[in-house]
Amino acid sequence: MYQQKSSINSFGLAAHAILAKMRTPFIIGVAGGSGSGKTTLSNEIRKSVPKKFIEHIPHDAYYRDQTHIPMEKRFHTNYDHPDSLETDLLIKHIKQLKKGKSVQRPTYDFTNHNRSKETVLIEPKQIILIEGILIFADEQLRKQINMKIFVDTDGDLRLARRLVRDVAERGRTFEQGIEQYLLFTKPMHEQFVEPSKRFADIIIPEGGFNAVATQMIQSQITAVLKNAKKK
Amino acid sequence: MYQQKSSINSFGLAAHAILAKMRTPFIIGVAGGSGSGKTTLSNEIRKSVPKKFIEHIPHDAYYRDQTHIPMEKRFHTNYDHPDSLETDLLIKHIKQLKKGKSVQRPTYDFTNHNRSKETVLIEPKQIILIEGILIFADEQLRKQINMKIFVDTDGDLRLARRLVRDVAERGRTFEQGIEQYLLFTKPMHEQFVEPSKRFADIIIPEGGFNAVATQMIQSQITAVLKNAKKK
Repeated sequence: MYQQKSSINSFGLAAHAILAKMRTPFIIGVAGGSGSGKTTLSNEIRKSVPKKFIEHIPHDAYYRDQTHIPMEKRFHTNYDHPDSLETDLLIKHIKQLKKGKSVQRPTYDFTNHNRSKETVLIEPKQIILIEGILIFADEQLRKQINMKIFVDTDGDLRLARRLVRDVAERGRTFEQGIEQYLLFTKPMHEQFVEPSKRFADIIIPEGGFNAVATQMIQSQITAVLKNAKKK
Repeated sequence: MYQQKSSINSFGLAAHAILAKMRTPFIIGVAGGSGSGKTTLSNEIRKSVPKKFIEHIPHDAYYRDQTHIPMEKRFHTNYDHPDSLETDLLIKHIKQLKKGKSVQRPTYDFTNHNRSKETVLIEPKQIILIEGILIFADEQLRKQINMKIFVDTDGDLRLARRLVRDVAERGRTFEQGIEQYLLFTKPMHEQFVEPSKRFADIIIPEGGFNAVATQMIQSQITAVLKNAKKK
């Protein structure tokens, strides 16, 4: 889609190659622990950018297909571990988007603990927003991300938010929520999420409720879009 | 300087008052431990903004006058403690700048361990950049700052940078540098600087060498200047 024009410029490079490079999607990554406020921040970002310029890809859409695993075993899947995610596929998709190609991202059915048959069309728009607790834990994925934002929120606050969500939206008891948190979320956070913070370009305390930081990210997106328009 | 025009708008407010409010300087604060990379970041920011739009105020220009203290005692001043700084005067100056008034900021003579007679004219420009290890440790000062940036760098890296600087630029031995660090810098960092991080709007790993974060701050400044121009 970026190859409409074709001519040779003074440096001997095909203009369409330059255009393609200049219009490469700008990849924003929003990471942070469960309950940190990642989604609130992502929503604030998405609200501020016209839809034609931004696509949103949650890492957890890439949970592995578990068709071959019996249902009773699926309940024990550790969704906080990097191995539960098909990160290679996400990386492949980002690379395709950077080449100006659309992709069909998978979707996940949390009721059946399995990948769904449905996919979602993701177009190579100017801003691609990737969101997930583990997106900075994988070196190859990190390399694809232009702006790495880590939302940093105290553990107690994250647990409190999770419990409220578990009880209000997921029909769990708070005891189940605490068990899940202590059994999976906390150890995986300490092993994979927290250490990945050091790869962030910026760290945002309190995520989407942080108006100053949100404003800064929006200004950067405005600059990226303006720059893309010029070229 | 913002009161040239004077008329009444539809809300019954004097236009000059609105103009003054809209053109209020935008205060950026850069904090972080000694050796964190604050100054590198501040320099990167300053380089990217035309001089007519930005003023820089280092907090350590406000070290207290020590004329009444004998020279031999001045050597023992704990420059890492908040009490060594006349923060009230800095706050007063920021308030004056916000009213559109110029101020004369003090300067400090580190050879004589005392405030100098010279002052530096600071004008009420659109961007005022405040820099210092302790600027987020004071609640009243924090309230004056629109964008609070904390440069977060590991302690060992900060010590390494300090020692290199102490030996190369300040004519100290590295043993003197280590003594100073362990006696003053580290305990004050733990007591005052590190706890003030939680008041930051954004946290930047590695300061001025972080190109993505620097670019984001510059984009925000561009947005602020553009906004001020419009009004």
